[in-house]
Amino acid sequence: MSEREKRGEKLLRQIDGDKVADNLLEAYNGVAPDFARYLVTFAFGEIYAREGDLKHREIVAISALATMGGCDDQLETHVHGALNVGLKKEEIVEVVMTLIPYIGFPKALNAIAVVKRVMERRGLIY
Amino acid sequence: MSEREKRGEKLLRQIDGDKVADNLLEAYNGVAPDFARYLVTFAFGEIYAREGDLKHREIVAISALATMGGCDDQLETHVHGALNVGLKKEEIVEVVMTLIPYIGFPKALNAIAVVKRVMERRGLIY
Amino acid sequence: MSEREKRGEKLLRQIDGDKVADNLLEAYNGVAPDFARYLVTFAFGEIYAREGDLKHREIVAISALATMGGCDDQLETHVHGALNVGLKKEEIVEVVMTLIPYIGFPKALNAIAVVKRVMERRGLIY
Amino acid sequence: MSEREKRGEKLLRQIDGDKVADNLLEAYNGVAPDFARYLVTFAFGEIYAREGDLKHREIVAISALATMGGCDDQLETHVHGALNVGLKKEEIVEVVMTLIPYIGFPKALNAIAVVKRVMERRGLIY
Amino acid sequence: MSEREKRGEKLLRQIDGDKVADNLLEAYNGVAPDFARYLVTFAFGEIYAREGDLKHREIVAISALATMGGCDDQLETHVHGALNVGLKKEEIVEVVMTLIPYIGFPKALNAIAVVKRVMERRGLIY
Amino acid sequence: MSEREKRGEKLLRQIDGDKVADNLLEAYNGVAPDFARYLVTFAFGEIYAREGDLKHREIVAISALATMGGCDDQLETHVHGALNVGLKKEEIVEVVMTLIPYIGFPKALNAIAVVKRVMERRGLIY
Repeated sequence: MSEREKRGEKLLRQIDGDKVADNLLEAYNGVAPDFARYLVTFAFGEIYAREGDLKHREIVAISALATMGGCDDQLETHVHGALNVGLKKEEIVEVVMTLIPYIGFPKALNAIAVVKRVMERRGLIY
Repeated sequence: MSEREKRGEKLLRQIDGDKVADNLLEAYNGVAPDFARYLVTFAFGEIYAREGDLKHREIVAISALATMGGCDDQLETHVHGALNVGLKKEEIVEVVMTLIPYIGFPKALNAIAVVKRVMERRGLIY
Repeated sequence: MSEREKRGEKLLRQIDGDKVADNLLEAYNGVAPDFARYLVTFAFGEIYAREGDLKHREIVAISALATMGGCDDQLETHVHGALNVGLKKEEIVEVVMTLIPYIGFPKALNAIAVVKRVMERRGLIY
Repeated sequence: MSEREKRGEKLLRQIDGDKVADNLLEAYNGVAPDFARYLVTFAFGEIYAREGDLKHREIVAISALATMGGCDDQLETHVHGALNVGLKKEEIVEVVMTLIPYIGFPKALNAIAVVKRVMERRGLIY
Repeated sequence: MSEREKRGEKLLRQIDGDKVADNLLEAYNGVAPDFARYLVTFAFGEIYAREGDLKHREIVAISALATMGGCDDQLETHVHGALNVGLKKEEIVEVVMTLIPYIGFPKALNAIAVVKRVMERRGLIY
Repeated sequence: MSEREKRGEKLLRQIDGDKVADNLLEAYNGVAPDFARYLVTFAFGEIYAREGDLKHREIVAISALATMGGCDDQLETHVHGALNVGLKKEEIVEVVMTLIPYIGFPKALNAIAVVKRVMERRGLIY
């Protein structure tokens, strides 16, 4: 395992949690074994490993995923990730509120539904 | 002028600068005089006026605009805005670097070109 | 409750029906109580309350939602809304037919499936 | 020339005007001679020739093009087309105003700039 | 039935298989009987019937559908179609791998999940 | 320079030509020196270096860029790239023709305009 890969997997586990990370690393082995490897070595081992604020990176991730739409599972993972790297519940909600004038209500509504689901699962709203 | 409108215009001027703000407030008067008013009262007077971190809001703006594409002028305005609310040059570059694995190289390349243009105009790169 | 909010809620109920409106007003209270409020005051209380043809506005809504994709629930609400403000079944189908050369068959196919579902629920097709 | 093609070219000329139609019919002859033919026979000869309201079709066109973004020339053609089939200046502006809560301010701003340009060229605003 | 329609239906059945083709031809009869007819006569009877390599056309289809997102059913149909016109399992996986740097990991992940599902159903992976 | 980087730069030069490659490698040095490096090492050194058909990869690139829109420069580069790896003029035109029913006429029109421009510059159409 290369340095990039070790560094990437460590960051993946920190941000996504072990369960999501394990699933991801296994999921496409039968059809595209290199897919998860590129995600680990490039997205995490190179980009996320750069000097900088992980909170900012998760704000970017949530904003990009909400804007492109159709990626609710990945958005859910990154709402968890945002909480895992220390963003507060209120800060994550503000990301989606800020998106409204940029991407419109329908896509923002899809995003807030995902945020709500994650917050409920983690017992952060009742 | 309502409270929302005053508050919105103040924030618009703080983030976009007076010159961009003046242009925007005048630009569509002949065809759609309410367009700029909604931008001021809703986007700035309500959303940006919420409690929260303006740096986070500008990271959201840059991420959303780079992801949707085709909005280079608005992206340019918000790269200026990001600097105006205190984000460092390096932090803005990291927003675009983080976008690469989410939105791909071509759209990220468009965004980095806009960032470069703003940095040059402000004498931040040589 | 402000004038905008009253006006917006009345229009929301007229277009979406009371059941959808009630659900929407409650849905995100736990996580983002202002989300529904902005939808009511801005989207309905300001934009939909403008002078103009509500049928045109629902044609815009269906066209925009079908074009962006990934917003089937919102599209479904606005197919109901289109019927509620007086568009005929055939006129709504023509909206989607007109979209084909602009957005392509796959997204138009997703939209026509939503239209079909609504028509069946309202007993308009057999 | 088939019936579909005649019918389509007639509608193309009615909606786009002769100058735009001539340009389009010539433009890609060197590289893809069938491109314009499909546009004429399918988009106009089949879809636009269907029974229904041409004003509605142009509202759909403007909404779809503004939502997808990056198609300013085609949007400009259809703002002209909307006026050519009898939509009033105010009705076209309302299409874009209605789009704001669905697609956000940045894309709506691009669309209103195109509307403004067309209105100025036709002497409808000063 | 016109020549275009016969030719189109034959190609539709070759690429999608009879079961998918039958479903498609029936599905929207109640609401928009012309929808499937346009798909058959234009998309298949005109475009797919052009001289050229059907393998290339299916690579285009998979790339476009993965890039636009939100069209998993249509993508699934065209992964089957790609196999039906002779693309190898490995070549289809490479299409998605090539997409990663262009459209980013999240949309490519959605596409590889569809590819995996098709491969499993056809007993090509275990 | 790592193996990946050497391999990537060689492929970049083969596909894009030396002039485009040189420009790209220099262009963002002042603002984001790692941007071009990731493009070279990941997109070319890892993805394009995989076993498989470079013609297929360029069909994927053109399809993805035409579908996302707003990336005309990158699309132009890859139309050159497609010719450079041996695709025929007619095969590239067929890629865009195939896209019409998937992405609609407006985006396909933007793409055919780029294809035309490249063909003219290379003296392939008159």
